Amino acid sequence: MKPRRSATGRTRLRELGEDLLLQKLFRLLPAGGRVVRGSGDDAAIVAGPAGRDLLVLKTDCVVEGVHFERNTRPQEVGWKAMMRPLSDFAAVSAVPEFGLVTLVIGGGREVKWVTQMYQGLSRAARRFRVSVVGGETSNTSGPVVISVCVIGRVEKDRWVSRAGGKSGDSLFVTGRLGNTLKRKHLNFIPRIIESRWLTANFRVHAMMDLSDGLGADLPRLARASETGFHVERESIPLNRGASVENAISGGEDYELLFAVAPRESKRLQNSWARKFPKLSLTRIGYLSQRSTRNSQLLPGGYVHFR
Amino acid sequence: MKPRRSATGRTRLRELGEDLLLQKLFRLLPAGGRVVRGSGDDAAIVAGPAGRDLLVLKTDCVVEGVHFERNTRPQEVGWKAMMRPLSDFAAVSAVPEFGLVTLVIGGGREVKWVTQMYQGLSRAARRFRVSVVGGETSNTSGPVVISVCVIGRVEKDRWVSRAGGKSGDSLFVTGRLGNTLKRKHLNFIPRIIESRWLTANFRVHAMMDLSDGLGADLPRLARASETGFHVERESIPLNRGASVENAISGGEDYELLFAVAPRESKRLQNSWARKFPKLSLTRIGYLSQRSTRNSQLLPGGYVHFR
Repeated sequence: MKPRRSATGRTRLRELGEDLLLQKLFRLLPAGGRVVRGSGDDAAIVAGPAGRDLLVLKTDCVVEGVHFERNTRPQEVGWKAMMRPLSDFAAVSAVPEFGLVTLVIGGGREVKWVTQMYQGLSRAARRFRVSVVGGETSNTSGPVVISVCVIGRVEKDRWVSRAGGKSGDSLFVTGRLGNTLKRKHLNFIPRIIESRWLTANFRVHAMMDLSDGLGADLPRLARASETGFHVERESIPLNRGASVENAISGGEDYELLFAVAPRESKRLQNSWARKFPKLSLTRIGYLSQRSTRNSQLLPGGYVHFR
Repeated sequence: MKPRRSATGRTRLRELGEDLLLQKLFRLLPAGGRVVRGSGDDAAIVAGPAGRDLLVLKTDCVVEGVHFERNTRPQEVGWKAMMRPLSDFAAVSAVPEFGLVTLVIGGGREVKWVTQMYQGLSRAARRFRVSVVGGETSNTSGPVVISVCVIGRVEKDRWVSRAGGKSGDSLFVTGRLGNTLKRKHLNFIPRIIESRWLTANFRVHAMMDLSDGLGADLPRLARASETGFHVERESIPLNRGASVENAISGGEDYELLFAVAPRESKRLQNSWARKFPKLSLTRIGYLSQRSTRNSQLLPGGYVHFR
């Protein structure tokens, strides 16, 4: 993806993809020796002050008109605002512990809206025992923005990233994909329980949560793992009413995508079915050699600013 | 401050002060057993995974049209966005370590603006050795919002909060107050070095950073400490061109306000003058008995939503 320049020579944000923008920006920012996984992965993982656990840090936001609408139920807005960063904790197999909430909102909004939004936030935080320890509010003339930062931990020998997938690994997704913008994106449950169970019982080589659609996210995992990928389109598990195209490009699934050695596949599928009988686990393909080029080019998922 | 209700019975945010709103909201949110100081103080302080240090967490944001203007130099916007939460680390005498940045911005903005804004963020982070380990960007149709979350640590025997001030304590402020909106609010330096030196050498009973103006912030410290206060208005150190009224109600000073036992005052003032010869330290008054009522009612500082 090569940025186009406008006639005046001033590139605008919408002419760049979000991945490219983040890459460009993060080169400017100081990292440090204690960073285990920094920007570019689902959550940052850093060496804690002591002990065997690592600190895990993630921030995410929801914006009115982008992630929810003016008439979306405020309880659902709050739920989504908290659950989005928690889904990144699932992606790295970490335990969330503390949350900070920043609310940017115009003075003309009803207090009742804010109260109900916080009820949704609160319900989501309680579900995963997250203590909300602080926050900030600011006025704005524009759309509501809710930014949630979550801090937690993961054992040194248990964190997973997008990197680490190996050629030949089986690719799995939890649940079903596509058609999520009808309702599911407002009341999804991050796969933290499932992710923690996976890393307690299997060697997961690479993992991420599907937030921008399989078509955008899988190439990111493959790139970080320095592999190619092969997806059997007909094997992609679909939500009711979703087409394969929709499942690939839809975004906001918040399901897990992960890679395990093929020899583990059978035991994984059997154990999963016993442990999580209500949630499907589907092998959708495998990671391939990088040099063979991807045998199937996925149509792009949702890319911010485009 | 009692909320007024509009004729329809629907209270709007602008009818509540920010303190009242935060109080109302945080009652809804789950806290936990590991929280040492939660919402309501400058930064949250929680028990870390191990060791003698506590984790310190703070999020803050800047909003276009509220904290900076469309034509503000982007380097200064980035500097301010990072330095605001760092000023709260000064307030509790903590050491910042990691930062997460959320940028909400319209696709029509120039990439150059964003690059220069990140240069300012980066310069501010480097100054206090903060590793920026992650971030998120989102599109918006409204004003730019930059939310920065900072994570760090403080020794168990060294953190300070707004509570803990005692009747009779001397009240000090660093630097000079007022008239900050001309320039200083865009290039201030949080008093982290000074705060760490203070707690290494003196028993600071209560401390905070002045962000909403002495007139709004001092009553918060007094309330948290369950004391009254007496300020000698003529002793308030003024920036060039600032009136006393302006120094009291102006906001965005980012200086430290703190309380120490009167018997420490002399040694503090002498040591300070040797250690920080270029930065003034001024005794502006003292904390009094709560029951005597405040002998001087300060005009209110900047209150959000009003």
